[in-house]
Amino acid sequence: MHTLYATLGSGNCYKIELVMHQLGIAYRTEFVDVLSGETRQADYLAINPKGTVPFLRLPDKRTIAESNAMLWYLASGSDLAPKSPYDQAMAVEWMIFEQTRLEPNISPARFFTSIVPARRDEKRQAIMDWQRKGRESLMLLNNHLRNRDFVAGNSYSIADIAIYGYVHVADEGGFDLAVYPAIKAWIDRVASTPSYIAMNILRAAA
Amino acid sequence: MHTLYATLGSGNCYKIELVMHQLGIAYRTEFVDVLSGETRQADYLAINPKGTVPFLRLPDKRTIAESNAMLWYLASGSDLAPKSPYDQAMAVEWMIFEQTRLEPNISPARFFTSIVPARRDEKRQAIMDWQRKGRESLMLLNNHLRNRDFVAGNSYSIADIAIYGYVHVADEGGFDLAVYPAIKAWIDRVASTPSYIAMNILRAAA
Repeated sequence: MHTLYATLGSGNCYKIELVMHQLGIAYRTEFVDVLSGETRQADYLAINPKGTVPFLRLPDKRTIAESNAMLWYLASGSDLAPKSPYDQAMAVEWMIFEQTRLEPNISPARFFTSIVPARRDEKRQAIMDWQRKGRESLMLLNNHLRNRDFVAGNSYSIADIAIYGYVHVADEGGFDLAVYPAIKAWIDRVASTPSYIAMNILRAAA
Repeated sequence: MHTLYATLGSGNCYKIELVMHQLGIAYRTEFVDVLSGETRQADYLAINPKGTVPFLRLPDKRTIAESNAMLWYLASGSDLAPKSPYDQAMAVEWMIFEQTRLEPNISPARFFTSIVPARRDEKRQAIMDWQRKGRESLMLLNNHLRNRDFVAGNSYSIADIAIYGYVHVADEGGFDLAVYPAIKAWIDRVASTPSYIAMNILRAAA
């Protein structure tokens, strides 16, 4: 069985739960407490030297340390894998856009706004910077989605799941999604795919 | 023919020249002057709304805006494409590691150390921060390469090219590669692959 090391409230961890649920892949979850520093302790670093979550151990003991790489592996050969070379390249392009321009802005803005709001005042300037850069990136995504239903190719794929993880909870980071109508329509499309699950479980502690 | 929009001295642009040369793909280069602000002007934003280089236009007019996505598309079906689902996932994992932990530290440290050294003093604290974070990431890469010849799978692939672009010139950003013997040995392996070309042309103006 697959083992997913995950933390509560993480969009990157939710992506993996969503794809495994939609593909009917059995797994067990080991919860890791990032807030208390568990990912920086020797026990966890022995499991994942990068000290990050999510972290996936496959039934054959091989491991994957990057959420979007887990999506690629888990969806391989399924309807959720982009098929043509160009659609695969678009998936890579938007997965990197997500990890360099969406997640690094939405995730910390959301963290200090909704997950540990006690530190919101202390982080006010940083939150404004994340929100400014995040808005620019969301507008690029909105423009990309204006003339298409899904992020890469003509059907729902792991490229959508990669982007959806944080973008659909961007409001929790102070982003007004009403400004991005194409993103809002796309969020509704993703949420209506077969075997969709919401982020509720992982958000329970947030 | 493929059109590559590129800037002098960029490791991300060099990756694309390297893979096209190794695969025998014909292309022409349009040079874009990032230093003078050309990527922020309306003319270039009409070509690439993301305002980044490299940018690739395919013979059929479709475009790709992310260097590692270009590698994926261009190498599709060739010996440089990772084959198994796990090797593909490792390529995605290390491409994202490159864009989130190697390039964002090595590239600006190199820029203010070797490309526009006039601003080195002004950026001294930032350079030290990039170098500290870059060293952590290079050590993770070094550990990954200790027991394997190539980044993903058992043969040279686009995952190596993605990482090589900036890592092989990290010394120009003040990184001492002698600290990372597995990286040094891997750099030699990459440089000895068939039809390898050095970064000389793109570095001419740096």
